[in-house]
Amino acid sequence: MSYTAHLAAIGSAFLAARQRSSTLIPVRDGLGQLLAEDAHSKVDLPIFRNSQMDGFAVDVASVARVPAELTVTAVLAAGWSGSAEHVPGAAERIMTGAAMPVGADTVIPIEDTEPADVDGRIVVRSSRPVGAFVREAGSDIAKGSTVVPAGTYLAPRHLAAMACAGIESILVRPQLSVAVVTTGAELVAPGEQIGPGQIYDGNLVGLASCLIRDGARVAHAERSPDHPAELRKILDRIVGDVDLIVTSGGISAGDFEVVRETLSDGTFRHVAMQPGGPQGIAVYEGTPVLCFPGNPVSTLVSYEVFARAVIREDAGLPAKARTTSRLTQPLTSLAGKRQFFRGKLGDTGVTPVAGPGSHLVAAMASADCLIDIPEDNTDIDEGAEVSTWPL
Amino acid sequence: MSYTAHLAAIGSAFLAARQRSSTLIPVRDGLGQLLAEDAHSKVDLPIFRNSQMDGFAVDVASVARVPAELTVTAVLAAGWSGSAEHVPGAAERIMTGAAMPVGADTVIPIEDTEPADVDGRIVVRSSRPVGAFVREAGSDIAKGSTVVPAGTYLAPRHLAAMACAGIESILVRPQLSVAVVTTGAELVAPGEQIGPGQIYDGNLVGLASCLIRDGARVAHAERSPDHPAELRKILDRIVGDVDLIVTSGGISAGDFEVVRETLSDGTFRHVAMQPGGPQGIAVYEGTPVLCFPGNPVSTLVSYEVFARAVIREDAGLPAKARTTSRLTQPLTSLAGKRQFFRGKLGDTGVTPVAGPGSHLVAAMASADCLIDIPEDNTDIDEGAEVSTWPL
Repeated sequence: MSYTAHLAAIGSAFLAARQRSSTLIPVRDGLGQLLAEDAHSKVDLPIFRNSQMDGFAVDVASVARVPAELTVTAVLAAGWSGSAEHVPGAAERIMTGAAMPVGADTVIPIEDTEPADVDGRIVVRSSRPVGAFVREAGSDIAKGSTVVPAGTYLAPRHLAAMACAGIESILVRPQLSVAVVTTGAELVAPGEQIGPGQIYDGNLVGLASCLIRDGARVAHAERSPDHPAELRKILDRIVGDVDLIVTSGGISAGDFEVVRETLSDGTFRHVAMQPGGPQGIAVYEGTPVLCFPGNPVSTLVSYEVFARAVIREDAGLPAKARTTSRLTQPLTSLAGKRQFFRGKLGDTGVTPVAGPGSHLVAAMASADCLIDIPEDNTDIDEGAEVSTWPL
Repeated sequence: MSYTAHLAAIGSAFLAARQRSSTLIPVRDGLGQLLAEDAHSKVDLPIFRNSQMDGFAVDVASVARVPAELTVTAVLAAGWSGSAEHVPGAAERIMTGAAMPVGADTVIPIEDTEPADVDGRIVVRSSRPVGAFVREAGSDIAKGSTVVPAGTYLAPRHLAAMACAGIESILVRPQLSVAVVTTGAELVAPGEQIGPGQIYDGNLVGLASCLIRDGARVAHAERSPDHPAELRKILDRIVGDVDLIVTSGGISAGDFEVVRETLSDGTFRHVAMQPGGPQGIAVYEGTPVLCFPGNPVSTLVSYEVFARAVIREDAGLPAKARTTSRLTQPLTSLAGKRQFFRGKLGDTGVTPVAGPGSHLVAAMASADCLIDIPEDNTDIDEGAEVSTWPL
């Protein structure tokens, strides 16, 4: 089976994961979420007619001729909970954002005034037209109107606007909730004591961090013992809780293949690619399961080439742009296999990092891209143009 | 004071925030963190000599001539904790990743073999050179070598490699820890009952989500009452815990300016820009404080144009690229002020969204960029090229 055919098969498995009902969350948790329905303003914005400047609320008639001397009858601060009547011919000292006194129709900025000789009076030096520096109620948005439309991936400005509109909770499509299960009797958690034949498990943190980086929520992450009954116990515990399960290991042609045995209704194939030949797709109790091979490099590359694009798309993150680059050295690739070499981009082009071996995980740490070599290319010259995928 | 002069002043205030000692965290929490010192492998990788294929471990001498019939003396699974001796002239069934039996020097893939007529024996159809499909211990990386160098912003591949190398904890520069404090007697939390003269606070969620989006950690986020004693109480409680404090409101020329009064040693200026004229920088008990104005649009724009770049740089995130675009309609801008209009990018260019008023927060939600108009440009024609900053 070709890489592209398996990729297409994964795409359809994902359709199931997309059927998610929306959840109510506080606006403050909404960053990056997909708004599931229009958010309507609970209030007019501005809520009340208010001043745009620190200055004096007046009626235009009394400052028609300047300089004009007016009595200051009140001081109106933002947040003051009373409502004021404007005294015609007088002025109210008003702060930015404070409610306009009823009857006042313009604001004279403080810098256009000065204290008069008589205490409690000011001199207005220049006039303003009706409505100057007055923010009318509802001039930004009217109560009940849509502040942010459904289908928006929420950025800070959307959250701020919804909060200003009095909206506390919103319906969003929940993040894709994923479980990561790594398998392999030989796996030991980093930091634990290691015995003969055992290795440290890099796949749990590798897959979980890939998913988080690409906008998914990792609801479970654990190592499974290498027995179908144990793996089934783990799957039964997590399956109701997640939209997708990703496994590593246990799917190739060996005698002990725990994922393959447990998910016996799944489709397990050898895909014509390297690394990452063994691949599987299954459904467990209605939840799609992506089964990747267990070699750390195979696991990470499988995620990058099969899962990353669809996970990012689901989260509303932009696709990582693939580029082309020139090889700084010749490459030999296996005939009939799509090969994903690890590479490092530089000013002169892309240089393969270490060999193609799927155990070279330390070498992969120093790579920053995959070099994608099609099935029918076997000898690629130095300077040849190749497709590179950012890591 | 000009926009660029105030921006430069903020840059130096940030230098203080950067003097942070590194913290020890589990590798699994390391995504996006800056590694503070080289991470050394605790083991050789591979840890032990192992098979790259499912097949049979043999000595090359016994398969020099093929077909060769060999007795299978053992089955070696990955994770098996014993160590096996190779029986010269015989074969051991071996799984991918299983330790090579001592004395065997090559692996024959299972597809190059078939069962012999005699039970417990196999026929090898094609030979392999010494070392074929054998991963030597340390061939990826040697114990004690650097897996990931200091100064790396950690991606999944780094975390996976460190985990494989047995590394459980790493020293990283902690995320910038920030407190957000919004001020204004008129502010009410969205969802609460609103009284006359009050408005909903959009700045708390707006600033907090900006900071999170740009890689910082928001350690505190709260609304302060409009009294210096109350604000001081809040600052005293959080100051030891954060690298930076961001405030909104309370810094302009009104009679009740709580931030300005509380941080009386700070520098409060009117910056020649719109929105966001009033700006402040202070230091409270050694911690830098960025003081933004309180109008929701002014607050968000201030963050974008003064803080975003430095917060992202600190977090190791790439700068948001500014682009140029053509205006789809003429614009009038105030002389002597750098003006940041909200705009929406389209196929034909950039269109200003609503007016310049700093209270138009719902309108800002529908914008996707800022249009940056220099101080000396007042009448900009339709079709003119302008600088746009992505939101």
